[in-house]
Amino acid sequence: MKRRDFIQNLAIAGTTATVFTPAILSCQPAKEKLGIALVGLGYYSTDVLAPAFQYTKKCYLAGIVTGTPAKAEQWKKKYNLPEKNIYNYENFDKIANNPDIDVVYVVLPPSMHREFVIRAAKAGKHVFCEKPMAPTVADCEAMIKACQDNKVKLAIGYRCQHDPNTQAYMKLGREKILGKVQMISCAAGYFDGRTNHWKQQKAMGGGVMYDMGVYALQGARLVTGEEPIAVTAQHFTTRPEIYKEVDETTLFQLQFPSGAVASCQTSFGINMNYLQVNCEKGWIKLEPFSAYNGNKGSSSQGVINFAIESQQAKQMDEDAEAIMQGKPLLVPGEEGLRDIRVVEAIYEAARTGKQVKL
Amino acid sequence: MKRRDFIQNLAIAGTTATVFTPAILSCQPAKEKLGIALVGLGYYSTDVLAPAFQYTKKCYLAGIVTGTPAKAEQWKKKYNLPEKNIYNYENFDKIANNPDIDVVYVVLPPSMHREFVIRAAKAGKHVFCEKPMAPTVADCEAMIKACQDNKVKLAIGYRCQHDPNTQAYMKLGREKILGKVQMISCAAGYFDGRTNHWKQQKAMGGGVMYDMGVYALQGARLVTGEEPIAVTAQHFTTRPEIYKEVDETTLFQLQFPSGAVASCQTSFGINMNYLQVNCEKGWIKLEPFSAYNGNKGSSSQGVINFAIESQQAKQMDEDAEAIMQGKPLLVPGEEGLRDIRVVEAIYEAARTGKQVKL
Repeated sequence: MKRRDFIQNLAIAGTTATVFTPAILSCQPAKEKLGIALVGLGYYSTDVLAPAFQYTKKCYLAGIVTGTPAKAEQWKKKYNLPEKNIYNYENFDKIANNPDIDVVYVVLPPSMHREFVIRAAKAGKHVFCEKPMAPTVADCEAMIKACQDNKVKLAIGYRCQHDPNTQAYMKLGREKILGKVQMISCAAGYFDGRTNHWKQQKAMGGGVMYDMGVYALQGARLVTGEEPIAVTAQHFTTRPEIYKEVDETTLFQLQFPSGAVASCQTSFGINMNYLQVNCEKGWIKLEPFSAYNGNKGSSSQGVINFAIESQQAKQMDEDAEAIMQGKPLLVPGEEGLRDIRVVEAIYEAARTGKQVKL
Repeated sequence: MKRRDFIQNLAIAGTTATVFTPAILSCQPAKEKLGIALVGLGYYSTDVLAPAFQYTKKCYLAGIVTGTPAKAEQWKKKYNLPEKNIYNYENFDKIANNPDIDVVYVVLPPSMHREFVIRAAKAGKHVFCEKPMAPTVADCEAMIKACQDNKVKLAIGYRCQHDPNTQAYMKLGREKILGKVQMISCAAGYFDGRTNHWKQQKAMGGGVMYDMGVYALQGARLVTGEEPIAVTAQHFTTRPEIYKEVDETTLFQLQFPSGAVASCQTSFGINMNYLQVNCEKGWIKLEPFSAYNGNKGSSSQGVINFAIESQQAKQMDEDAEAIMQGKPLLVPGEEGLRDIRVVEAIYEAARTGKQVKL
């Protein structure tokens, strides 16, 4: 098998099935596309998710939930949304009665995820929730339980797990194609010049470990296919006047049951996005590994470079399809919870200066 | 200026002058080449340094010091060495009376560096000493003092500092050509299958932090041009039956006065040799960054890839020339001491699990 074919096969094998089966057991006729309502119209909804709906085939932008009337008006015109599909935070729960909306996509600051995921679940809607899932393990568990109790699905917006480049990366590590994974070095950060964004506010779920750190954590977890058993961590800042409440730069080190070790860095002060993995018989590099406009890299088995139209479209389509087919989600709430469990341990380790066992 | 020219200039500016001035103030006629005696004929002397003398212009292999009579016989024949220039560990001090030997190059296990550097200094010979300089700061200080007291020079065998690729790297960072250095990620390791080498024995100066860790430490120190002010560190092993006395894998994190942070990894169990630096306005990568057969890489300013015949020949020639010209050495004992000061702090941090301030 040629190297290129080999790597192609890696990705295909890692992707969920793309055959569409329209029938779901329901008293209503099966939909061909799910209607999605975005909750929270900040940068990610406005500049990333809304444009991604150009590429979706299994779902479409059906509604919005916003606290800003001016935004409601803009979106209504731009996306030709019916008035009845536009909600604010107060009347949001009436979405229960709206058959156009199948899925509520929560794109709010992390501190608001718990409330809105639970309200969406109680309204009988499936839920997509952005990463990080929530500030605490308790939040995540409550969100998972609410979705179970209300018999709706909960997907976390880890778009990279839907990216064939990340899937090739995962397969190389988990199937030990280059031997055991031994060392992961992973860096995710960008320079954030803002001073009063939710990312800088503890009460809103800010802190770099939540926002960018989970990418570096995923970089390590995904390739090993394991959960860390011990963590150490250190916080640093070069802008103490801004990063008073939350971390600007965090280093963390993870030990996995197999013996693999990860050395990770995340920052709101440094532009960096790469990972390097050393295995018994080879290596893998991705750079970038968590960028919106496509991940790419190479390994001792060959190049990893799959072009896709839109990570977010692929993520929403695959999640919508799984819901319509009654199949397991690629990234369910439990996966978001796994990260937050480690994030809590990392904050504890940094605060106490001690290793935390998991 | 073209990128290539720019990077070329970086290296030229970082290299010591290559004009040879033969006169040194001495009662003896000035030599054109210094005679070097290698002490300790293990792998590095046999397979790396001895062949490097093919390329040296300012020094030559003049003698050997070995505890193994069979090796003495082999080297004598192979390199046509006069009997009078061959010593063992007992009669080594008589080297004082041998005018053929100008420099003693100590290539023994680290635990023996102190004794042989001091004996060489007392014999009135200049000294080259392999890295790591010695197991403790006290050792290093005693070695430096002995050389000062005996008015001989002491150079540490950090060949990479003589490599124009490393010099370009240093210049990019220290002169802030890409803005301030913000994050250094640096990994140096190889799989060592041996079970009873000095590298696995504490009493002989073993431990991966000494042997390979100093490369990762240099990777961080050289680009910042600063000394770390705080360190944390963690040890790991996947072969506890072999790594009973010393560390197999060590992660360490460094904080520098400017705010730069380094995340470093070193291992006797993992093949890895790369560094990545993120600066305010760009990046630098070298891979490998401490290999014998040439370092190379790239930066946001262009490729870094200078071919040189032999790092070791360049190192020995530049050190010999500095001695003949009475000029400062590129890598004096004080530079070896700086690393060991940090290495001691790293071991303390790993042992106690606490941050150590420097």
